[in-house]
Amino acid sequence: MNIRYDNRPIGIFDSGLGGLTIARAVQEELPGESVIYLGDTARVPYGDKSVDAIMSYAHDDVQFMLSKGVKLIVAACNTVSAVALESLHRDFPDAAIIGVIESGVKAALSTGARSIAVIGTRATINSDAYRRELHRQDHSLKVDSIACPLLVPLAEEGLTAGAVLNGVFDFYLKQYQAAPPDALLLGCTHYPLFRNALNEYFGGKVHLIDSAKACALAVREYLTENQKTAQPDNTPYHRYFVSDLAAEFNEHATRFLGKLPARVEKTVL
Amino acid sequence: MNIRYDNRPIGIFDSGLGGLTIARAVQEELPGESVIYLGDTARVPYGDKSVDAIMSYAHDDVQFMLSKGVKLIVAACNTVSAVALESLHRDFPDAAIIGVIESGVKAALSTGARSIAVIGTRATINSDAYRRELHRQDHSLKVDSIACPLLVPLAEEGLTAGAVLNGVFDFYLKQYQAAPPDALLLGCTHYPLFRNALNEYFGGKVHLIDSAKACALAVREYLTENQKTAQPDNTPYHRYFVSDLAAEFNEHATRFLGKLPARVEKTVL
Repeated sequence: MNIRYDNRPIGIFDSGLGGLTIARAVQEELPGESVIYLGDTARVPYGDKSVDAIMSYAHDDVQFMLSKGVKLIVAACNTVSAVALESLHRDFPDAAIIGVIESGVKAALSTGARSIAVIGTRATINSDAYRRELHRQDHSLKVDSIACPLLVPLAEEGLTAGAVLNGVFDFYLKQYQAAPPDALLLGCTHYPLFRNALNEYFGGKVHLIDSAKACALAVREYLTENQKTAQPDNTPYHRYFVSDLAAEFNEHATRFLGKLPARVEKTVL
Repeated sequence: MNIRYDNRPIGIFDSGLGGLTIARAVQEELPGESVIYLGDTARVPYGDKSVDAIMSYAHDDVQFMLSKGVKLIVAACNTVSAVALESLHRDFPDAAIIGVIESGVKAALSTGARSIAVIGTRATINSDAYRRELHRQDHSLKVDSIACPLLVPLAEEGLTAGAVLNGVFDFYLKQYQAAPPDALLLGCTHYPLFRNALNEYFGGKVHLIDSAKACALAVREYLTENQKTAQPDNTPYHRYFVSDLAAEFNEHATRFLGKLPARVEKTVL
């Protein structure tokens, strides 16, 4: 048997630092793999920009990753995955690029859920990408899509529990609290931070689908199927790039990655 | 007597659409003046970016205004006024550029307030620009500065009253509700939308200083002192530029300008 390996890094990009939740999940699931992370913090957030702007920024992000010689690119940004993935596949036909939507949908369906609520930024929800993918898999599913633009700023403010958060949950989700869906798909990289609070809000009655974990499993599947996993004795390295280094970087990075990156490098996109 | 006039437009720029509150105030106070508005919506918000990034973006904004032949440039963005105004004055020594901080401070002091609380974005508050200007005018003032990063997303979500807003007020301002300052300086172009709610929150006991109105008066003063007002029979025109045109433009523009702009033009910065 002739197994091939590929020690090149995995590229993970997001509009900001939220995608570090996916970098973390990938590092936990695939501890032998190197990761290059890019946060386009100079132009964050993408979620309320136009489709044209999002596509243009996503192209810059992919170009950056290609310049770093990655073997696989993960669009860790739900907004990019929702509105720009097709255009990326068209314009970079030789690059392996995966988004977070397909894997999130797969994870939601694996629970056996018949009714699924999707929450995300306005751009993600407006794109209708999650609902389309869910219905492509099973057109008889009951799907609700709810834009929750306040959740990202709440996460960045560290308000992942308490009265303000519950007020915001009531604002967006009150009607679902009374009649919960089978599964709630967290369609934004920031939302895993609300996992406990959402569990409590829905009295533990809803399957919470975390796109970070699901995406890491999709990465593993891609690498295995394509014989691109790193050699078992590979010593992985991780590099973190941002397009703007703001004062709160350490605080935010720690929140999403679960630790402080050893080093962060500033780059121009 | 030999009065000179200047029919060139006034340039007003902001990171996004919040500065339309200032365009509106200028148009109301100076109905004979033409206004060119620029919202850098491709890179909004500035408030949580680095000082370097904010200075670089502000330079682009000023270059754009100079290319339009304006007679005066208003940095309607508190963040820019707080961290980039000196650098703009240095790099564009021939341009007349005013920010919103000096006029806001002047308006606050004109109430006779002895204790003043300033609220704004994280970048504005971290810059300490309001406190420094207040203490430059009167070092015996009691000044508190409170970063309220959730208020901008709340305004953009249209939550300018109600339980969620009150929860956020409690989160940031609870201690001031019990012992209100004499004046509350609204250090962000979005905050005039909270005027009624803040008035209620403080039981009408606090002077609310609206930077939009104060800035319009500073514009009038500059034009009068420099004999640059438009001729009395001038027919003004208004042009609105954005660097990204998102789906919610009409809704947001109407909220801040009080009406829908007749036409909006997209520009590259």
